[in-house]
Amino acid sequence: MSNIKEVKNGHLYFDGCDTVELAKEFGTPIYVYSKTDIVARIDELKECFVAPYPKNRIAYAAKAFCCMGIYKLCENEGISMDVVSGGELFTAMKAKIDPEKLEFNGNNKLPSELAAAIDYGVGRIIVDGEQELDLIEKICEEQEKTTDILIRITPCVEVDTHDYIVTGRKDSKFGLNIDPDVIFPYIKRAIDSKYVRFHGFHYHLGSQLFDNKPMLDAVDVALELMKECRERFGFAPGELNIGGGVGVTYTDEVRMPFSYFYTPILEKIAAWCEKEDYEMPAIICEPGRALVAEAGIQLYTVGMTKNIPGIRRYAAIDGGMSDNIRPALYGSVYGGVVANRVDEPADEIVTICGKCCEGDSDMIIKGGKFASPRSGDIIAVFSTGAYGYSMANNYNRNPIPGVVIVEKGEAEWLIKPQSYEHMTALDLLPEMLK
Amino acid sequence: MSNIKEVKNGHLYFDGCDTVELAKEFGTPIYVYSKTDIVARIDELKECFVAPYPKNRIAYAAKAFCCMGIYKLCENEGISMDVVSGGELFTAMKAKIDPEKLEFNGNNKLPSELAAAIDYGVGRIIVDGEQELDLIEKICEEQEKTTDILIRITPCVEVDTHDYIVTGRKDSKFGLNIDPDVIFPYIKRAIDSKYVRFHGFHYHLGSQLFDNKPMLDAVDVALELMKECRERFGFAPGELNIGGGVGVTYTDEVRMPFSYFYTPILEKIAAWCEKEDYEMPAIICEPGRALVAEAGIQLYTVGMTKNIPGIRRYAAIDGGMSDNIRPALYGSVYGGVVANRVDEPADEIVTICGKCCEGDSDMIIKGGKFASPRSGDIIAVFSTGAYGYSMANNYNRNPIPGVVIVEKGEAEWLIKPQSYEHMTALDLLPEMLK
Repeated sequence: MSNIKEVKNGHLYFDGCDTVELAKEFGTPIYVYSKTDIVARIDELKECFVAPYPKNRIAYAAKAFCCMGIYKLCENEGISMDVVSGGELFTAMKAKIDPEKLEFNGNNKLPSELAAAIDYGVGRIIVDGEQELDLIEKICEEQEKTTDILIRITPCVEVDTHDYIVTGRKDSKFGLNIDPDVIFPYIKRAIDSKYVRFHGFHYHLGSQLFDNKPMLDAVDVALELMKECRERFGFAPGELNIGGGVGVTYTDEVRMPFSYFYTPILEKIAAWCEKEDYEMPAIICEPGRALVAEAGIQLYTVGMTKNIPGIRRYAAIDGGMSDNIRPALYGSVYGGVVANRVDEPADEIVTICGKCCEGDSDMIIKGGKFASPRSGDIIAVFSTGAYGYSMANNYNRNPIPGVVIVEKGEAEWLIKPQSYEHMTALDLLPEMLK
Repeated sequence: MSNIKEVKNGHLYFDGCDTVELAKEFGTPIYVYSKTDIVARIDELKECFVAPYPKNRIAYAAKAFCCMGIYKLCENEGISMDVVSGGELFTAMKAKIDPEKLEFNGNNKLPSELAAAIDYGVGRIIVDGEQELDLIEKICEEQEKTTDILIRITPCVEVDTHDYIVTGRKDSKFGLNIDPDVIFPYIKRAIDSKYVRFHGFHYHLGSQLFDNKPMLDAVDVALELMKECRERFGFAPGELNIGGGVGVTYTDEVRMPFSYFYTPILEKIAAWCEKEDYEMPAIICEPGRALVAEAGIQLYTVGMTKNIPGIRRYAAIDGGMSDNIRPALYGSVYGGVVANRVDEPADEIVTICGKCCEGDSDMIIKGGKFASPRSGDIIAVFSTGAYGYSMANNYNRNPIPGVVIVEKGEAEWLIKPQSYEHMTALDLLPEMLK
């Protein structure tokens, strides 16, 4: 357990809060985030990424966990944010974030989304497809505005992770091909455009990486492209966004520090710039999962238990695949404890299943070790801070649980739990059914 | 194409409505349901299931698609509804459905959910676990009420479908074991209880079945149990709920008529009753997907396209895994057309990908045949009526699309599209982030 998790009087404490008390006060199921842990991750990253090169930027990839509060936290900590839709942009603006701090990604940004981004004046639009530049120029013309862009490329570097979260290979919906007949005419257009200011390139290789080699390989591809740009057009791009992808610990993965990835990358770029007489570009990284996954836990209450002798022992919780679809979607493996008896030996193999009407898909932890869960126990599931709440749904019309943020023993609502009224507010009774 | 899909003037018509006009009037992305098709399916099922045995009941499994309107439609057509949560129950009550028409399923019904169900007076509670009867009796005692129950069993019949939707085998979180030392003491308690009226058994084998053999096998298990009940306790259960599971056509599956499954089952039960001198029980079935899957389509607008020569051709739509997670979750395969040019030859292999920030998981149709989609085209995806809307989420903070119901050329909103305001209404800015 990291230092934000402690055991006191047999209870699990999380960032100074007794999780059993949290469950009582705020109810279950619930998501809990440690502000201390998120801030510590940001600080760790700043130290190796921004401190040695102050032009560099960190842009939190909000898709991992998006709400007004997390944007505010990022702004308070002085980092930028990566938004990927009109909805994420709306959330940031509702939280009164300085739009200059936003970088807008996405393979198929809608005209309405681009119009909003240009109108607000976001810091960067990461142009993703061959047709997007036309669309941006058209909108800029209509609005009599200009905008700042990077161009997303597919560096064609293979990574070792789940197919669902590989994004940097050639067969990808994202980014422009770096074949010279595709990329250079496009760059030329961007340089010559009177509506956009072209700053450089963006790529993202994939998620949940533990080896820095693909990231180091991809840098070579990008630097080569930047040099070629300078040679062909006399324009030396001043920015490179290297995406996210740093792997986190769910159960027994060994998480590498940010410096393992970024120090050699930044040193490599600096050495190359020295050699090529190229002004050191601003490097941007986009951590999502790496900032919030381990900072989040979920708390559930055990209801029914079922023991099928010789086959399996089930403990059913008051949530399930509707609030954490990752085990079903990616085969993700989580660990957890009985939070109210965390000092008792976890010597029973138990499957923590949900209350949704599905079979294997509704198992949050398939055969984990627990201190014999019984009805009324509080189960804490660890490392659920990324892609849990953000993918939550109303399957079985289960309302989406609320989110609490905790810091050194203090706890506050970050997102209210969904009520039945909110969940059904859009239902109508049309004339033809009356 | 079934008869609710037609081609006129190069456009796809759905239940008499021009889908291109629907896209214009209601916007995309959007879910569209044909009332005509749902009613026709209900009629087909009634004819083979209820007409020959008027005591029988059909209970629509609302988890496939739940909203006020679909409950109302079921009530108008004279069928019951299977609810699986407090949220589905709330939705039904909000639609002013007669609670007697509701059957309440679920492996881990919460105390609050059971209390609401007993308070409303639902028709049947399907008791699922060893501890649930205690809980129901306690709530009945507090409320000074009684309730009507079935007991869910696991008949231990193997079926051929996706592991995620197998529910009737011995290793299941659902239902009671039929080992005599487990089931008979439990039945005895139910018979003797002063709070519940025990009517019989329930089971569900799994979903998307095309072979009637497992269903016929399971009937044997249940009938044997009913006979044993009569012998042991002098009580002959009068109801048997055989669940759902009838397979539908997504692309090239050959859907079997309801009568293929239910006529031999009902005949088998009738013959057994004759032989055993057992009064014919009321049989209940719970179709979900089978009533709504093919009655639903989704309409999207194409935005960016990307051709990677020799590798893949992508057309990106204004939705994706956030409104249909089934391709990523179950590997589900869908078909579709360019709705505004449906008379042109579909001779290009195209991957219809979404706008979400993921790779392979955000492909709605991986390599389907289309008439070369281009920006602005309307893509119709077929058979999306089950588990599409019901599993939709706000991933990437994409709002959940609205739902339109159509009938013979008329169209009305069934569920309004989610606004950014509704989506972000629960976000707070806690003191510790100010």
